[in-house]
Amino acid sequence: MKVMIIMGSKTDESVMQESQNWLNWFGIENEMVVASAHRNPDKVAELMKSAKANGFGAVIAAAGMAAALPGVCSAYTSLPVLGVPLDGGLPGGIDALYSIVQMPAGLPVGTLAVGKAGARNAAVLCARIFALSDNAIAEKVEAFKAQEYKM
Amino acid sequence: MKVMIIMGSKTDESVMQESQNWLNWFGIENEMVVASAHRNPDKVAELMKSAKANGFGAVIAAAGMAAALPGVCSAYTSLPVLGVPLDGGLPGGIDALYSIVQMPAGLPVGTLAVGKAGARNAAVLCARIFALSDNAIAEKVEAFKAQEYKM
Amino acid sequence: MKVMIIMGSKTDESVMQESQNWLNWFGIENEMVVASAHRNPDKVAELMKSAKANGFGAVIAAAGMAAALPGVCSAYTSLPVLGVPLDGGLPGGIDALYSIVQMPAGLPVGTLAVGKAGARNAAVLCARIFALSDNAIAEKVEAFKAQEYKM
Amino acid sequence: MKVMIIMGSKTDESVMQESQNWLNWFGIENEMVVASAHRNPDKVAELMKSAKANGFGAVIAAAGMAAALPGVCSAYTSLPVLGVPLDGGLPGGIDALYSIVQMPAGLPVGTLAVGKAGARNAAVLCARIFALSDNAIAEKVEAFKAQEYKM
Amino acid sequence: MKVMIIMGSKTDESVMQESQNWLNWFGIENEMVVASAHRNPDKVAELMKSAKANGFGAVIAAAGMAAALPGVCSAYTSLPVLGVPLDGGLPGGIDALYSIVQMPAGLPVGTLAVGKAGARNAAVLCARIFALSDNAIAEKVEAFKAQEYKM
Amino acid sequence: MKVMIIMGSKTDESVMQESQNWLNWFGIENEMVVASAHRNPDKVAELMKSAKANGFGAVIAAAGMAAALPGVCSAYTSLPVLGVPLDGGLPGGIDALYSIVQMPAGLPVGTLAVGKAGARNAAVLCARIFALSDNAIAEKVEAFKAQEYKM
Amino acid sequence: MKVMIIMGSKTDESVMQESQNWLNWFGIENEMVVASAHRNPDKVAELMKSAKANGFGAVIAAAGMAAALPGVCSAYTSLPVLGVPLDGGLPGGIDALYSIVQMPAGLPVGTLAVGKAGARNAAVLCARIFALSDNAIAEKVEAFKAQEYKM
Amino acid sequence: MKVMIIMGSKTDESVMQESQNWLNWFGIENEMVVASAHRNPDKVAELMKSAKANGFGAVIAAAGMAAALPGVCSAYTSLPVLGVPLDGGLPGGIDALYSIVQMPAGLPVGTLAVGKAGARNAAVLCARIFALSDNAIAEKVEAFKAQEYKM
Repeated sequence: MKVMIIMGSKTDESVMQESQNWLNWFGIENEMVVASAHRNPDKVAELMKSAKANGFGAVIAAAGMAAALPGVCSAYTSLPVLGVPLDGGLPGGIDALYSIVQMPAGLPVGTLAVGKAGARNAAVLCARIFALSDNAIAEKVEAFKAQEYKM
Repeated sequence: MKVMIIMGSKTDESVMQESQNWLNWFGIENEMVVASAHRNPDKVAELMKSAKANGFGAVIAAAGMAAALPGVCSAYTSLPVLGVPLDGGLPGGIDALYSIVQMPAGLPVGTLAVGKAGARNAAVLCARIFALSDNAIAEKVEAFKAQEYKM
Repeated sequence: MKVMIIMGSKTDESVMQESQNWLNWFGIENEMVVASAHRNPDKVAELMKSAKANGFGAVIAAAGMAAALPGVCSAYTSLPVLGVPLDGGLPGGIDALYSIVQMPAGLPVGTLAVGKAGARNAAVLCARIFALSDNAIAEKVEAFKAQEYKM
Repeated sequence: MKVMIIMGSKTDESVMQESQNWLNWFGIENEMVVASAHRNPDKVAELMKSAKANGFGAVIAAAGMAAALPGVCSAYTSLPVLGVPLDGGLPGGIDALYSIVQMPAGLPVGTLAVGKAGARNAAVLCARIFALSDNAIAEKVEAFKAQEYKM
Repeated sequence: MKVMIIMGSKTDESVMQESQNWLNWFGIENEMVVASAHRNPDKVAELMKSAKANGFGAVIAAAGMAAALPGVCSAYTSLPVLGVPLDGGLPGGIDALYSIVQMPAGLPVGTLAVGKAGARNAAVLCARIFALSDNAIAEKVEAFKAQEYKM
Repeated sequence: MKVMIIMGSKTDESVMQESQNWLNWFGIENEMVVASAHRNPDKVAELMKSAKANGFGAVIAAAGMAAALPGVCSAYTSLPVLGVPLDGGLPGGIDALYSIVQMPAGLPVGTLAVGKAGARNAAVLCARIFALSDNAIAEKVEAFKAQEYKM
Repeated sequence: MKVMIIMGSKTDESVMQESQNWLNWFGIENEMVVASAHRNPDKVAELMKSAKANGFGAVIAAAGMAAALPGVCSAYTSLPVLGVPLDGGLPGGIDALYSIVQMPAGLPVGTLAVGKAGARNAAVLCARIFALSDNAIAEKVEAFKAQEYKM
Repeated sequence: MKVMIIMGSKTDESVMQESQNWLNWFGIENEMVVASAHRNPDKVAELMKSAKANGFGAVIAAAGMAAALPGVCSAYTSLPVLGVPLDGGLPGGIDALYSIVQMPAGLPVGTLAVGKAGARNAAVLCARIFALSDNAIAEKVEAFKAQEYKM
């Protein structure tokens, strides 16, 4: 199973590279995609609807400001969706945080901290999820814990 | 031209009834629809893509919590989209307010106050917009101003 | 129909230039005015009362801190008024945001995001409004959408 | 010298009655007026421009939500203007507080606490101001202090 | 695999019952435990260290105020930990939200909305996670989606 | 009558110099004092108790963080006390703002905006207050208004 | 050694009764006093200056809104001062929290949670402090821990 | 009696050095330890359980973001625990502040200001606490007060 890292804007890549780096460390295949719930809603819908069939097991969705992307991803796929709020609008990314975490009942987005810490933790949470059915990743997760959750 | 009043949940109707009441006062035809950017994204997309062809000239979109609906409407139609943040999540509807007003450049949502005041003002703003090309509504707008913006 | 871009202070021009640039792209005639609801209230009143007669079809009003300008504009004209909160007081321009968006029932200000994103979106919302009765602008709006709401 | 208590809406009267009660205790003549910076801007302008000539020595201005009234009063008169933010919009009246206190340089509004405490303190501050040139009020102010600032 | 629903206080049960109800709907075995990161830290540590061996596949941790529980759970287990902030301290549970979502890099807590919506969504996210390796649950997840994420 | 500009710390002088500059423009005699409600409470008490007898007619009190100074000044003198919240603790000086403006009934502090704008406006408000009984200052106040409240 | 529980207003007694109840449980002698940093500053100063000589070993100071009392207590005594922010002004007592916790360097106030939880914890912290030099209290503190910090 | 200064991360040392410097000034022996409630929970537990036996009389615990450390320390020791919120996550360290100060009843953390001011004040509060049973420190505390709480 792969992880799709989807972000609303090309400018989010430097932060979301952290997700990729950490996924790589756990040996989890992944792909980075830029697609916006606002600019390319049909592309997002298509990516999500086909995600499972295309071999993805989880989605990391990142966005700033009125960050609709993670919630919209959650609407179109039944895979676990993890959300990373990004800074860029109101100070501290508080607008993105509220836009992502306050999802109505039925459509979960597992939300992580704002910015880089969240981007890294989204990768770790994917690793913990995949570890439930993948022994190689499970060993990596334990190794990561043994080194006090640091890289 | 008609106005579509779209809201994320049946429970939003009592507040959004205010939009309808005020639109009616201005003599503006309107329709209320319940459709969620999260629960029925395809329905929202379809409603928006066909809105202009179906005779709509503006959209009033209301939602609470992670209020993605107004922004998603703005993504799928080129009509003016007005957003009404609703209470229900964080106190004062601050989560919905930030989720609606902080749209990225390119996709405007003209945001009104949280709750009933916003629902009413969305109607008045529609009236001002339609008044630009409709004399009957323009007269109503002036009459409304003459009575100090009260009903 | 023209758009009046009105701002409370000369120092707001660099941000509000974004509104002008984007209006120009849509082929919408516009004028930039500096007038403050506090320093020149009579000038603001006069500008608004004569706006329609002078060929304006919408007003973009921008201000920071205790941002009374957009609301006062809405009081003096029946044209659609769009508000752009500007940074400069409390972090993130939160004071300006609340001062603009929380208008009482009857006097709408269609509020956009704080700062440059909002300045650009005010222009796009004007374009969507004018497109309702102007085919040339309507075509531009569709073209803008086709290029994913970017310039 | 009298004090004008001006408020944006009839519904603010129960809170602002506190200003009147306390002014009466200090023996300060006062008048309550309902006029909105948004609904009756010309009335507000007229009241302020003639305030000094009509025997007023200070203005207490109260409003909720996008509370433009105190700042607009300050624009039209050179009398001291005191502002009382009222609850009614965002929780705690935080929208009104920011809209009143964050005035740009040049146009002061001496802002008091949100709600009843602020309404009472606006009266006390008027008493302290008038006491500078009125011995009877100065005695009252000292008496008030002697009873530990309570009534 | 079972889900452990752990909460800091007996008084949290009425809200967290929502997690249980929803997990039951998906046919996911679960257990509710009351244990506090502050009052019974050793019990929490023990529960987490033995969770995997005891057949658990995920942890839903809920707490209010200085909500340390979800993060501490994440420290002691390598299972996916989902956090539900509860109201009870600062308005809207904002203290619990920040205490749960702002985890440092390395120790993820997938955070859901404050209160009941979050309690329900934690269950749905568990279902999505378990569905990756359990066909019966996967079918339930699709059925849930088909009924528009409602029960 | 003179104005006392009192501030909690030597480091506040660069901001509060604005109060002095503006008072000087209005021809209002003034003195700057550094005294803290926390470090030198007896000095503050003494300064306030003797302020009126020493020829002061108003107090401008500025402080950051847990800004007790303006309120404590208001407790010890019956002169009008104006408060200027300063940045330095929580972003935007929001801690100082709340500490100054939220005074309990009976003890007013007329609060101005955070930082330089507030420091300047405290001077203008003093000028408006003194103008009630001083024609030379009253003329300056009108001149200042005539130049649109700018220097 | 006794503990002085000092609060700004008679209306704070019902909350601060919690401090007293809990101190009694630990067998710590205490006295409740109502004195305000604003209404009775000299009384507060006198109480604090004589506190040590009168047999007090710690001060619990509680206040709402612009809560200057704990900081002023800290200025006048060298005893440990613990602060309890109370609700009553801005929602959640956030104004009191910031006014108490954000003390400048040199004058500590050990701040507890807003409201009843804080009132109780101030008592427990006193018990932990006194336990350093009082074996009877130390035993009570261990007993309290053994029953999981509950009464 | 010594003071343990414990912090969640090596990067917190530059701020917490302030605690050490100030403790040294008071002649209070102290040790700095880096241990995280999340990365090394067992180490934290062990340090706290043995703190009293190892000669410690108080704990200063500092952390940023989801700052669980001070509360967890309070759970494992009966010594007085003082908390210092650190910046690094949400602006102003507001996430750490809420995570530390909002402890549930029974487990106090005496919380100081965010950042350096808080780090210094934690040292001063320790000095005031130790002064209750140590005359040398008591003299230092009075000397510190005599120099207006400055170093």
